[in-house]
Parts: sequence; structure tokens; C-alpha cells
Amino acid sequence: MTAPNRNTLWAEAFVDELARGGVSAVCITPGSRSTPLTVAFDRHEDVHVFSHLDERSSAFFALGRARRTGEVTPLVCTSGTAAANFHPAVIEASQARVPLLLLTADRPPEIRDSGANQTVDQEKLFGSSTRWYRDVAEPESTDRKLRSLRTTAARAVAKATGAPAGPVHLNFPFRKPLEPTPVEGDVPDSLSALAREGRDDDTPFVRTSPGVSEIDETELRTLSSALDTERGLIVAGPADAPGVDGESVAALAHATNFPVLADPLSGLRYGGHVRTTPVIGGYDGFLDDSLTGAWPDPDVVFRIGASPTSKPLRKYLARTSARQFLVDPAAGWREAEFAASDLVVADPSTLAWRLARTLGRGSGSEEWKQRWLDADEAHFEAFDSSPSFCEGRLLATVAAETPDPSTVFVSNSMPVRDLDRFGVPRPKSLTALGNRGASGIDGVVSTALGAGSATTDPLTLVTGDLAYYHDMNGLLALGRCDVDATIVVVNNDGGGIFHMLPIADFDPPFTEQFLTPHGLDFAATEDVYDLSFARVDEDGFRDAYVESVGSEGTQVVEVVTDAEASHRVRDRLKERVIDRLLDEA
Amino acid sequence: MTAPNRNTLWAEAFVDELARGGVSAVCITPGSRSTPLTVAFDRHEDVHVFSHLDERSSAFFALGRARRTGEVTPLVCTSGTAAANFHPAVIEASQARVPLLLLTADRPPEIRDSGANQTVDQEKLFGSSTRWYRDVAEPESTDRKLRSLRTTAARAVAKATGAPAGPVHLNFPFRKPLEPTPVEGDVPDSLSALAREGRDDDTPFVRTSPGVSEIDETELRTLSSALDTERGLIVAGPADAPGVDGESVAALAHATNFPVLADPLSGLRYGGHVRTTPVIGGYDGFLDDSLTGAWPDPDVVFRIGASPTSKPLRKYLARTSARQFLVDPAAGWREAEFAASDLVVADPSTLAWRLARTLGRGSGSEEWKQRWLDADEAHFEAFDSSPSFCEGRLLATVAAETPDPSTVFVSNSMPVRDLDRFGVPRPKSLTALGNRGASGIDGVVSTALGAGSATTDPLTLVTGDLAYYHDMNGLLALGRCDVDATIVVVNNDGGGIFHMLPIADFDPPFTEQFLTPHGLDFAATEDVYDLSFARVDEDGFRDAYVESVGSEGTQVVEVVTDAEASHRVRDRLKERVIDRLLDEA
Repeated sequence: MTAPNRNTLWAEAFVDELARGGVSAVCITPGSRSTPLTVAFDRHEDVHVFSHLDERSSAFFALGRARRTGEVTPLVCTSGTAAANFHPAVIEASQARVPLLLLTADRPPEIRDSGANQTVDQEKLFGSSTRWYRDVAEPESTDRKLRSLRTTAARAVAKATGAPAGPVHLNFPFRKPLEPTPVEGDVPDSLSALAREGRDDDTPFVRTSPGVSEIDETELRTLSSALDTERGLIVAGPADAPGVDGESVAALAHATNFPVLADPLSGLRYGGHVRTTPVIGGYDGFLDDSLTGAWPDPDVVFRIGASPTSKPLRKYLARTSARQFLVDPAAGWREAEFAASDLVVADPSTLAWRLARTLGRGSGSEEWKQRWLDADEAHFEAFDSSPSFCEGRLLATVAAETPDPSTVFVSNSMPVRDLDRFGVPRPKSLTALGNRGASGIDGVVSTALGAGSATTDPLTLVTGDLAYYHDMNGLLALGRCDVDATIVVVNNDGGGIFHMLPIADFDPPFTEQFLTPHGLDFAATEDVYDLSFARVDEDGFRDAYVESVGSEGTQVVEVVTDAEASHRVRDRLKERVIDRLLDEA
Repeated sequence: MTAPNRNTLWAEAFVDELARGGVSAVCITPGSRSTPLTVAFDRHEDVHVFSHLDERSSAFFALGRARRTGEVTPLVCTSGTAAANFHPAVIEASQARVPLLLLTADRPPEIRDSGANQTVDQEKLFGSSTRWYRDVAEPESTDRKLRSLRTTAARAVAKATGAPAGPVHLNFPFRKPLEPTPVEGDVPDSLSALAREGRDDDTPFVRTSPGVSEIDETELRTLSSALDTERGLIVAGPADAPGVDGESVAALAHATNFPVLADPLSGLRYGGHVRTTPVIGGYDGFLDDSLTGAWPDPDVVFRIGASPTSKPLRKYLARTSARQFLVDPAAGWREAEFAASDLVVADPSTLAWRLARTLGRGSGSEEWKQRWLDADEAHFEAFDSSPSFCEGRLLATVAAETPDPSTVFVSNSMPVRDLDRFGVPRPKSLTALGNRGASGIDGVVSTALGAGSATTDPLTLVTGDLAYYHDMNGLLALGRCDVDATIVVVNNDGGGIFHMLPIADFDPPFTEQFLTPHGLDFAATEDVYDLSFARVDEDGFRDAYVESVGSEGTQVVEVVTDAEASHRVRDRLKERVIDRLLDEA
């Protein structure tokens, strides 16, 4: 490396360390102040550059990619409000524990807070949502500063992938010249090779051995004896990136003989283990006090992952008298009913394997397990045999028809709930993803495409119309970032979820301020972005979906639905299932 | 008022106080947690509700409206990432001193940081960009809490419009029921009328007399004697909302006999005072050391408003040896060349009137003034007589042809610069606005439409293609918020401003990472939003613009331009003007 000036040297050294730390892709939006970083990333052979124009979409794209891969994904933007556009994705990444690396270019310190153009207070811009923040030193070609920079890069990767993983923010002041023009004397020959070029064996400047939290043998025996009981549940909420080892939880399920209530985003609803493991997927459709009031309580609940998407499940767990173990590798508390009795700070996969070995063949009762399997079967049978259409049918179709392997991203608010309720556990390699950290409807298109960019699996996004509108800018990535997808738009012309809430009884303001029908004609997105658009009805959906997911390019398949009617169908189905189960009891 | 529950009472009391404080409009995005505020705003007769679907666009719309009116404009959103989408507009509002009131609904304290759905850390979410932040108390029907709430509302309005004006953030925790369903005993009869209904004469609960900073007579004499000199300049940068009193600066110009270098966003480039005041508009087109190196330095510079848009002007001022007075009512420092010698903390309009009275007829030399007028004339003559097209011609046409009165919003990066350089000072009531607080390209469509919503003047937005793309979601407000506009899209297919920067010599990565051609076909926005679209060439622009600005509805007039050619024309024009002025000297 013979950098023409200190900024070039600085950015090249930094990007070099990121690449050595495993970074393989970056999302960049154009800007002048960030020129040194942009040029360094663009020139690095081992880092793929995804170029975006809207920083908000760029950040969600990086989020999706990092969620799919578990790898640190950096973002570059220029100074000013650009960085603030990252904020929604940063919050989602923080809450969902996704490793992002926010690289914001800044004006140099001497002109901050003095009215200089595009100069805002970027320090700690993302508040409590980052795992680590540093205002990086001003570039200078000295051994100590460059060693500090290389160390910072390595630490940033380690912090972003620590426990919990999450966003790291490095703010980079740069002074002109920003482009790689030669500056006499800016990079002295006297620099050490180590500072200038890093370690000569291509390893990172600092390797971090992160360690993983595990409980000791005594604690393990206490926990396994608590699980050595008749009635227990394993509850798996949405998984942290890159996901949990399904086989480990399956082993624990066998060792305990407990059913596994698997959130669609848990990584356990789908996979080979489903063939031999009692995975329950329909709990959202039958859990209700009218049914479970007559059931015995579980003795113990073993919970991994984030808080489950299903409110009926959360409320059911809160009603039981069971001892509830929350397992969290980062000592987080993700249970807002305050029904849990024990927090176990340990990696869930490792712990599940250890417990499975300790327990051998556990004491879970067949009757208890069968009760859950029967209820699940009743739910899905009732759904299958119901002639009434509801939006959930679209999610069920997607889960059934998507190829093996594939990635399915489901938006908030309704698609993820419908997949939760109507997605049968299946033994295929279906990676179901969603933004359940903060459960926003923003950035959905970009997050899905970012996830798709990380894999050759076919990608499906199922989104509501509001979420689709909110991040239409994200569609630009289809062409620019060379991602293909099948995008299913469940268009009920507004906020369908509000039909489920009591505000529906107050109109006005219900329609104008909550339902917010917009009448947008999404067909025209075909003429703006690199996609083809088809509007189909309920009956035509399966064929249209199958054809799309099996073909090249991106197809948007829109189904116009009636949100209120769908809610009525969901409610009636639930009543029928519960009635039938009560009759049989 | 007989509120059915504490949340309804709470929100109604709060909105009631805002309305008494002068709030007349609010921007709301749909959400559940914010239901009490949304319902209260919707029910209040004196507050107009603008309903948006994308929080980022909503915030910029409110920003535009507040900038145009100077009135506090509240924003309502639900909990979670929704609020983070406000962040870019909040930063712009902070830097540009625009009074926003951010009302973010939040989950109640007991479930924060516990994995509850859509629950993120919203406390101090906007960091240093707000003038005031409070986590509002949990709603309760007690006298003291309601009086505290009414006081908080009044204080929020006062803080947002203080010196400097800016965003205020109130975070509102709400617990169910969120809708106005009756809750027995939730609103006791024993509440005082004052707490329940506010003051009975319709005044705010607390009136704030803000006071305005003024210098004393001794300081005034010092300042006026410094201005009592031969060669001086009045430099007006972008004005704080709602703008400066043009007549006051005109009076000072007459009293000093100094020319006024008026930024297009200063409120002084246009207006009746231009007929009789030496307003200079072409400085960006002739200020260069090759010319001014031969000029005498000014003795004194009197600066008001934010830092001027024109870099040649800022650099010229930094080169002079003049004593430079920065006048800022909020004691801000908005001068990043550090050429100023005096900070005068005073309201610029009041100070200008006081100085004009003190100075009587000042001693500014005719020769000095004429030098500036001649240069200005040479610049505009050269431009008018040049056969070459550059993008600046579009801005010149808009400024010439827009009706009187009207509002013209210019986006970053190039339209505002082109208006700066090519917009002749005119004696008409043209309100020129832009986002120069942080100078981002985000939120431009929404800011313009928000400004337009506040006036019956015809509205024109001139935007680049990247800014248009970045906030296409903002176009939804055309139909939803009933705003008409003429939107001129200067489409040079990417980041035209980068042609001006040295990075243009490094390709790759120039084209892919900086210029970022996108090839978007904006014609299709016609099928999505409530507008008609026309693509015209340079020659057809004037007619198309005149027709559009004189008709109902919204027309997008796109002109495809060549950014690089435009830069060459700008450069050649500047060279010609300077050569001519040097020849004449």
C-alpha cells in the first residue's frame, strides 16, 4: 500500500482490518464527506459494495443481511441528517441483536457547532441503541494512531458480535482532501509496516476470544432436576441472529419429552427436526382461558429466544403457576408478563445439549404432550377444512409452497401473526425472518432484500400494504443490488390490524386516523422499479405464487383482501377449534 | 368535558392547552399506543389534522409548515421505531430553528426494557437536537397531575418558540384502555374545574412572556460607530422561521448606504424593499480572489441569519480584514470560517431598526456600493445573454415566472445553489425556502408540501432527482393533505453535485459510488399519486412551468439535464464575468 494521503491510508487500514475480521459486504450511500471510506471499500477485493440512495433503506438492507448471516455488516454515510436516517434500523438491530457497524463520516472537530454546512451533532447519535460508540481520532499517519485505528476496527467487530450482538457506531471526522489525491509528506516512509499494513499473516490486528456464558455443573443439575417432571413446555421465541441450533433444542425435547412451542421466527418451526420432534405451531389459534382453564398447569417452562410473537401464548404462560426459566446468553430480560422465575445466562444451544445429556430420557408425560399435539392438529384441521378465506391462508400457502430451502420474510403487523397462527411446522429448510425487535412496519422491503442478498435461496417477502408503501424506496435495491424476490402484498388498503382493536368501535376517528385507507395503486411500482406486478384474487394466489417463486426476476403478487372479514374468520376458526376440543375433553 | 377515562381526560387536557397556546395543526401517523392523543386531536375543533403514513415524511411535512408559519407544529406517532423516523427532520428543525413538538406515545414504565412488543428506549431519543425533553407522567385524574400536564403543554410551546426555536420532545406513556371507553371511577367528580377544563377565559394555563435579547445603549453606540464607515456590507444568510423583517434591514441599508448581500433564503432577496435597496443577488457568480484581490477590503460586515449558502461568499468574507459582527438572537455561532470578531446577541430586526435610527444617514461610499451593483449587473447580464443552457436557467425562470405572492421551495444540493447564483433580486413577495439547517437531501417533498399547506400562495418545489426519489413517499400528502404544487424535477440522473468535486477524477469509483445513476422513470409516480407528470426539454420549460403554476392540481414538470455540462456552463460564465469586470476596472 502506498496511500497518496493520510485519509486514504486511514480508510484503507480500517477497511483492511474489517475484512480481516470477516466483513464481506458493506452498504454505502453516496456523499462527499465519506469519500475516503467509500473509496477504500470500493477498492477492497474481499468486500462487496451494495450501493443505496436512501440511507433508511440502506440501513434496513444491512440489517436484513446481517440478520440472515450473523456477520457484521457495515454502513457508510455522509455527514448530517444522513446518519439519522439509519436510526430506525439501528433500534431494530439493537432490540433484535443484529450486528451492524455504523460508519458515519463527520466534519472535523474544529468546525462542529459553528454553522458549517451539513454539520450536525453526530456524537452518540443513536443513544442507548449501540453496543459501543467512538468518535474516531482525526486521521494522521503515525504509528500509534494507526495501531489505535486497527485496534478500533477489530474491537468494533467483536463488540457488534458480542452478547448481545448489536449495532456499533464509529464516527469518522475527515478533513479535505477527501479523495485519493497525493499530498506531499502526508504519509511518511518512516511508518512501521505493522501500522501501515497490519499483521503480515492476514490475521486481524487484534483477535478477540469472546467467551460464552455457561452455567456450572451445580446450576446445571438444579436446572435439569427442575425439568425432570411430568408437564413441561419448551417455548422458543424469535431467535437472535444467526439463529439457534435446532438439533440442540430437538435433543432437549426428546430428553424431556416436552412439546416445543415454536415461534415462526424461532428457527424451530421449520427444519429436519420437525419430523421427530413434537413441534407445536398452532398455539396462537387455540390457547385461550376457556380451553386451558380446564387443563392442568405445566410444572415448568423452558424459554429461549425473544418474547414470543403470540399474545395468546404470552398470556397463557402468565396464567400458569409453572416455574419458568428464561435462558438468555446476554442476561437480557425479554418477558414482559413477569411470569418468569429464573434467568439463566447461557447460550441456549450449548445449554440444551448439556441438559439433554444430563437428563437422558426425561419424565415428561405422554398425556400432556398428546394434549398439545391434539390441540395443534385440531387447529390445523379446522383451518384446512374451513371454506372461508382469511389472509392467513396466504401465509399458509407461502409456507407450504416455498421451495426447500428458501427464505421467507414476513412483515409486521399481520403477516407475521398469520404465519404464527397458520404456518404448519414443516421438515423443510425454511428460514423465516421478521423484524420483531421493535416490530415496526418500517424498512420491511429493504430488510427482506438484504436477507435475500446473503443467500442463493429463493426469497419471499409477505408484506401488508402499509409496510410496502413505507419502504417502497427499498425496491430500488432489486436492480441496484441484484436481488430477486417474490413479494406478496396483502393489500387491505390500510391498517388492517386496527380492526382487532377497540378503537374500531369509534368512527370517527377510526377510518381517517387509524384504518387510513390510501387507495394507492401499487401496480405502477412496476414502471419505476425492476419488477413485474400481478394482482390476483384469493383463488388465483397459489398458482401465481408457485409460478413466481419458481421463476427468475422479481414479481410482486398483490392480493386485495378484506381485513375485517379476515379477522372475523380468524375469530370464528378459533371458537370452532376450542369448542371442538372442549367437546372431546 | 366528561372524559370516559383517565387517558381520554389526559389527552384532551393536553391538546386543549396546545390549542390555547396557538397550535392550529398537527401531523399524525396511525398507531395504537398513540390513540388517546390521536382521538383528542381529531376531536378538537380548532386543530387541523394532517394524516400521514410514513413518519419520516410526516415530520418533514410538519417542519415545512412550521418553517412557513413560525408556529409550533406537533407530531404524533406510536411507540417503537416510528419515533426514530422523525429524527432526520428533528435535526433539521434543530439546526434551522423550527418549532416542532414531538409527541411520542410510549409503553408504560413497568414494561420498558423487558421485551414487550414495540417497546424501545424512547427517552431522550433525539439527543442534543431538542430544546426540551420530558417523559410525561403516567395519566392520572388528580388535580396536581393535570395542572402539571397543562403547565407542561404551555411550557412546551414556549420552549419550542424560544431563542433559538426548535424541537421539543414529550414522551407519553399510556396504559390500556387507549380508546375512549368508559372506565368506572377513572375520572372522579371531585376534580377541580381548573384541572379538568383549564382556565375559564380560554387563555393558556401558563402564559409565557419570552423576552427578547437586546443590547444596551452603550453597546448600540459602539456598534453604530463601527458601522459609520466608508465600506461596509450587510450579509443576510438563511433566516430563522418565520423570517426577518425585510423593511428593518432595508432601513439599515439606507442608513449605512451599504449593499445587502442577500441569500435566497434570507427573506431579503425578494420583497418590496428591493425597489429601493441595493440588494445584491449574484455574489456567488462573481466573488473570487482573482477579482476581489484587486478590491479594497470592507471595513465592516454586519451579518444576520445563518451561514450563507454561497461558499464563494463565505470564503470572500474570510479573506477580508473587516471587523465582522455576527448578530444572533440566540447567542448561536454560525460562522465556520472564524472570521467574525463580534457576536451581538440581539433580535436582528429590532437591532436593525435601532441602528438605522441611530445612524441617520451613514457614511457608506457610493463608489463601494456601485462596485457591488456593477458586478451584480455584469453577472446577471452575462447570464441573460449567454446562449448556453445550465440548470440555473430553470431556477431563474421559476423565480421570474412564479406569481406574486408565492412560495418556492428549493432542494439541496444544486437547486438552492442555482437560485443563489441565478435568482435576480425582485420586488415581489416570493417566499423562498429550503432545508439549510443540515442541508440534507431527505424530506424535501414533504417539507415543501408542509410549507404549502400553510398558505394559499401557489407553491413551487424545485428538486433534484435524488431528493425527489428520497422522499417520494411524501407525495402521498398531495391527496391526503389536499396540497397543490408545481414540482420541478431537475433530473440529471444521480448526484450532479459530485461533478463539482475532485472525486470526479477517480472513476471507478466515481460513477458507481458517487454519481450513482439510477435510471428511475419518475413518470410512473403519476399512476401512484395524485399528480400529473410532464417531461419537457429546456426550451419547453418556461411554458410548461407557467401553465402549471397557473392551474389547479399538482403537476410534476421534469427536465432532463446534463449535470456535467451545467457545471461547465456555470464555470465559464463566472470566468467571463470576472474577466469583463477586470477589463473594465
